[in-house]
Amino acid sequence: MVTFADVSHAAARIAGRVHRTPVLSCGAIDEAAGASVFFKCENFQKVGAFKMRGATNAVLSLTDREAEPGVATHSSGNHAQALALAARLRGIPAYVVMPTSAPAVKRAAVAGYGAEIIDCEPTLAARESTLQQVVDRTGATFIHPYNNEQIIAGQGTAALELLEEIPDLDVVMAPVGGGGLLSGTCISTAALAPSARVIAGEPVGADDAARSLAAGHIIPSECPDTVADGLLTSLGELTFPIIQQHVTAIWTVADGPIIAAMRLVWERMKIIIEPSAAVCLAAMLEHRIEVAGQRVGVILSGGNVDLDRLPWLRGRS
Amino acid sequence: MVTFADVSHAAARIAGRVHRTPVLSCGAIDEAAGASVFFKCENFQKVGAFKMRGATNAVLSLTDREAEPGVATHSSGNHAQALALAARLRGIPAYVVMPTSAPAVKRAAVAGYGAEIIDCEPTLAARESTLQQVVDRTGATFIHPYNNEQIIAGQGTAALELLEEIPDLDVVMAPVGGGGLLSGTCISTAALAPSARVIAGEPVGADDAARSLAAGHIIPSECPDTVADGLLTSLGELTFPIIQQHVTAIWTVADGPIIAAMRLVWERMKIIIEPSAAVCLAAMLEHRIEVAGQRVGVILSGGNVDLDRLPWLRGRS
Repeated sequence: MVTFADVSHAAARIAGRVHRTPVLSCGAIDEAAGASVFFKCENFQKVGAFKMRGATNAVLSLTDREAEPGVATHSSGNHAQALALAARLRGIPAYVVMPTSAPAVKRAAVAGYGAEIIDCEPTLAARESTLQQVVDRTGATFIHPYNNEQIIAGQGTAALELLEEIPDLDVVMAPVGGGGLLSGTCISTAALAPSARVIAGEPVGADDAARSLAAGHIIPSECPDTVADGLLTSLGELTFPIIQQHVTAIWTVADGPIIAAMRLVWERMKIIIEPSAAVCLAAMLEHRIEVAGQRVGVILSGGNVDLDRLPWLRGRS
Repeated sequence: MVTFADVSHAAARIAGRVHRTPVLSCGAIDEAAGASVFFKCENFQKVGAFKMRGATNAVLSLTDREAEPGVATHSSGNHAQALALAARLRGIPAYVVMPTSAPAVKRAAVAGYGAEIIDCEPTLAARESTLQQVVDRTGATFIHPYNNEQIIAGQGTAALELLEEIPDLDVVMAPVGGGGLLSGTCISTAALAPSARVIAGEPVGADDAARSLAAGHIIPSECPDTVADGLLTSLGELTFPIIQQHVTAIWTVADGPIIAAMRLVWERMKIIIEPSAAVCLAAMLEHRIEVAGQRVGVILSGGNVDLDRLPWLRGRS
């Protein structure tokens, strides 16, 4: 299992290669939440998301011999961009398997960081078999988006920095999709602020983590559907036990409140966050009583938004 | 004429009452500009704009006897919100004369800060006569949006802070509407970085400052038309001579590049700026040769945007 020593090593490994992002607060949001909220702004991270931490740690953890043939993954989201950039910064190839259905803007972003994109049909079976072919052909190392120890340790550095800056938090919140960020957050919080509760935010439309935690075993999402498109994935075998051990609660929240919370951050903080990054604030606003007067750290996971298709404008144009 | 001593006094007066905003930079934008650009983020200022500096300085400069009846202004923009909040923080009334044509969202913002709104017809004559009536009735002090020494001194504190943090700038840029921010920027730059050039950005559709500077006397805008709706006003008698004395150049730029620069900042910096705040970057990108390899400070004037009506989506919905 990943330990805090792994997170500390990751922090040292990626220092200077990823941004140390600021922690911001906002009076209007504190008032709305009835709590003191400290936002760790991973929307300002390289590639616009915390994923750069894990990807950089994973790429830098490879020996020179392992690194030479490159790295590979399947993703159409922020992990793909992060892995592409981390590989480019180490000067090694990156191969990204993407469904033919992925938006052109995401393909362009990954290609822009110098990765080779390999098309596949938009099914899980096609994705996995195509990835295996790529690995077989190139000798690249597969870097899973979250079910990977170096990824988890890298994502944990966000909470580590947050707690270094604001040590006396009562609650630390992170959104949960596959659980890489959340499990890393658990490890850092348990080590640095053991009395703080770790609470996750999860979209109702992709609530596999809440259901898995209640059931005591992993229940994958089937047909998840939410505006928070970074959180569609299901927990993995490495992330689930960490979450099970440390997380106090998973608060689920519907898309309407997620969009409202996203807009609140845009309007009052003047920063751009993606829907997935608004899930924790949305959940907190629905659970005001449970955080009343407390000091709450929230990891804003990313800021990659299609500015031509804002969620509050959908259906209007 | 306003001096640097006035700006220094303003800085001391407003310290702790306005935010000391961060200075941010962005690798992708440096690359696009071919220069090192340092953005002073007044979009993160209270009420979302630098206007809070001047308004706070003006309100705090009043004696208790002057302050008691309150302050008044005519504005439908950021100055009205700033004056309303500054007055509320001092516990005095604020009266804002607004044309009946002002958007409901702006009226609500001003009312939300506790100001009394007085309607007038949307003409200059009606605005001035209504304001005079309000002043006569209430005894409030008129605080002009820019043609006011305390306002100019207050706005100069943005460049003062920028130059305290980044002392070795080659160029300092600010947008120009009525010239309050620009003239304050001139005074601070002349004192703290006398070898730096001060360059203004101005929309082509409201280019009275560029024409006034060329003519050597104030030429007011007639029917200004630009997406940068914070820059529609014309220079004043107090701001023009300062600008004439210190400004090296006024670069005018069309709405298309302004919108593109605004979007570039949103996408790459993940911060929200209003069109007026994008004018300097847009102008700089058209004048790359003149800033090549230099260190350029840019004051991002504000971040108040109607998120239901983004300029790159207009005409589409």
